[in-house]
Amino acid sequence: MKLVRYGEVGMESPAVLIDDRIIDASGEFQDFDEGFFACDGLASLQLWVEDGCPGGRVVEAGVRFGSPIARPSKIVCVGKNYADHAKEFDSKIPNEPVLFMKASSAFSGPQDDVEMPIDSTHLDYEVELAIVIGRTAKNVTLESAVEYIAGYSVMGDYTERQHQKHRGGQWTKGKSADTFAPMGPCLVSCDEVSDISDLRIWTQVNGELRQNGWTGDMLFNVPFLVSYISQYMTLLPGDVISTGTPAGVGMAMNPPCYLQLGDKVNMGIGEIGEISQHVVAIK
Amino acid sequence: MKLVRYGEVGMESPAVLIDDRIIDASGEFQDFDEGFFACDGLASLQLWVEDGCPGGRVVEAGVRFGSPIARPSKIVCVGKNYADHAKEFDSKIPNEPVLFMKASSAFSGPQDDVEMPIDSTHLDYEVELAIVIGRTAKNVTLESAVEYIAGYSVMGDYTERQHQKHRGGQWTKGKSADTFAPMGPCLVSCDEVSDISDLRIWTQVNGELRQNGWTGDMLFNVPFLVSYISQYMTLLPGDVISTGTPAGVGMAMNPPCYLQLGDKVNMGIGEIGEISQHVVAIK
Repeated sequence: MKLVRYGEVGMESPAVLIDDRIIDASGEFQDFDEGFFACDGLASLQLWVEDGCPGGRVVEAGVRFGSPIARPSKIVCVGKNYADHAKEFDSKIPNEPVLFMKASSAFSGPQDDVEMPIDSTHLDYEVELAIVIGRTAKNVTLESAVEYIAGYSVMGDYTERQHQKHRGGQWTKGKSADTFAPMGPCLVSCDEVSDISDLRIWTQVNGELRQNGWTGDMLFNVPFLVSYISQYMTLLPGDVISTGTPAGVGMAMNPPCYLQLGDKVNMGIGEIGEISQHVVAIK
Repeated sequence: MKLVRYGEVGMESPAVLIDDRIIDASGEFQDFDEGFFACDGLASLQLWVEDGCPGGRVVEAGVRFGSPIARPSKIVCVGKNYADHAKEFDSKIPNEPVLFMKASSAFSGPQDDVEMPIDSTHLDYEVELAIVIGRTAKNVTLESAVEYIAGYSVMGDYTERQHQKHRGGQWTKGKSADTFAPMGPCLVSCDEVSDISDLRIWTQVNGELRQNGWTGDMLFNVPFLVSYISQYMTLLPGDVISTGTPAGVGMAMNPPCYLQLGDKVNMGIGEIGEISQHVVAIK
């Protein structure tokens, strides 16, 4: 299945995407949020779809898409999870996952603008594969880890490099501005993904290919990350793990090339989907 | 006013504390959560209290207290915000606030046990003054910052030092375990606090005084922190800012003295209140 949410900011309705048609599911499901996943909503949604989406009307094209899930309880990010990006970042290849968090208030829709913070001079892009957690995960084994995953999506891990690297040592400040975590367009359920470790992951800026990686190059793969993170904190239904970015960020270009007002960024991951943002001034 | 939540874990009811009597407010208010603060619930609660709490029954003593607010959208923490603690931590006095986040799944009640992670050898305590945000704060000026505060509480910023300092450089991993953020017992509204920068802030471990500071020693004070953080991310109603800890943590003792199973920790801040935890094995 492909889950989406559409409508104005803060007023999104849940829906499914079937052969490019948006079928509204709000008559049956309140939202794709923590409660939905906790109550095995994904299985109920599957039954509803198999039943032909009774009562679900087709939504006209051209609507705004929100993030495919409601604002999660947390967004756990993995730093330096591709060797080539670790090298361009600070040359240190981590021997275990580096974890940090992004404020969930940064969450936005897949085509929403990214807003440049007031004093931003080093705004950068990072395309990442997002894991959405399907049920409460605490001290989960590597073998069972995939059972805790609801599906996958594309997330932009927008970053203000000056705020990340030179403002106290912790990265939160450079990662958490509003609009810095666009996600979508769909939540793709696990059964629709042939091989999560065999997908191209890329970014274009104004049509120029900047990142061009492969999810198989992750230092720590998807099941490992779910199991590992669940040793340090309980992952709740609907939580997001953002799994790191491949090489090619603006900071690492020679000379560095940061995002400017008016730039258009496109990011995509194989069959998972594609998101895009215009860079605008803070609203 | 003093807001509390009582009842079993995950089933807490909102209430107010008046002269040590717990008055249930669940007939009028669903919970003390983001929606409550966003809809000016604090003003409505004030009117209800002034009206004599109509329909509010007195709750018998001996109930469990939960955190005084529901799980927030985020817990933003300030590192090294007391000079004497910055010195004992790594000797670097920051020239602006160091920000990091604690997973909100770490949130727990003021007398709940703190659980030692499986491989924990360096469990440590930090008492902190918690600010609870009353309304959406984005790019807030220093002058107006206090208007965005709903009130104050006591938070324990429990920390696994090995996970914080030697597992990748980012602190999240050592800060986010379940039960690592007990808060309470009350949310004390601003009007009940005579001077937030003139309170004793202390920790006892098994009756021995370990931390004994003064909120006036913060490097960056309460209004500054609200204004500063709101430049980097939007603070939502019900969000928590934990404002850092004074000197005296276990890591800085000679020799270091970390928490052990069975230890009893008490933390308090002047008229704001007192919380306590027993250290137990992970459940």
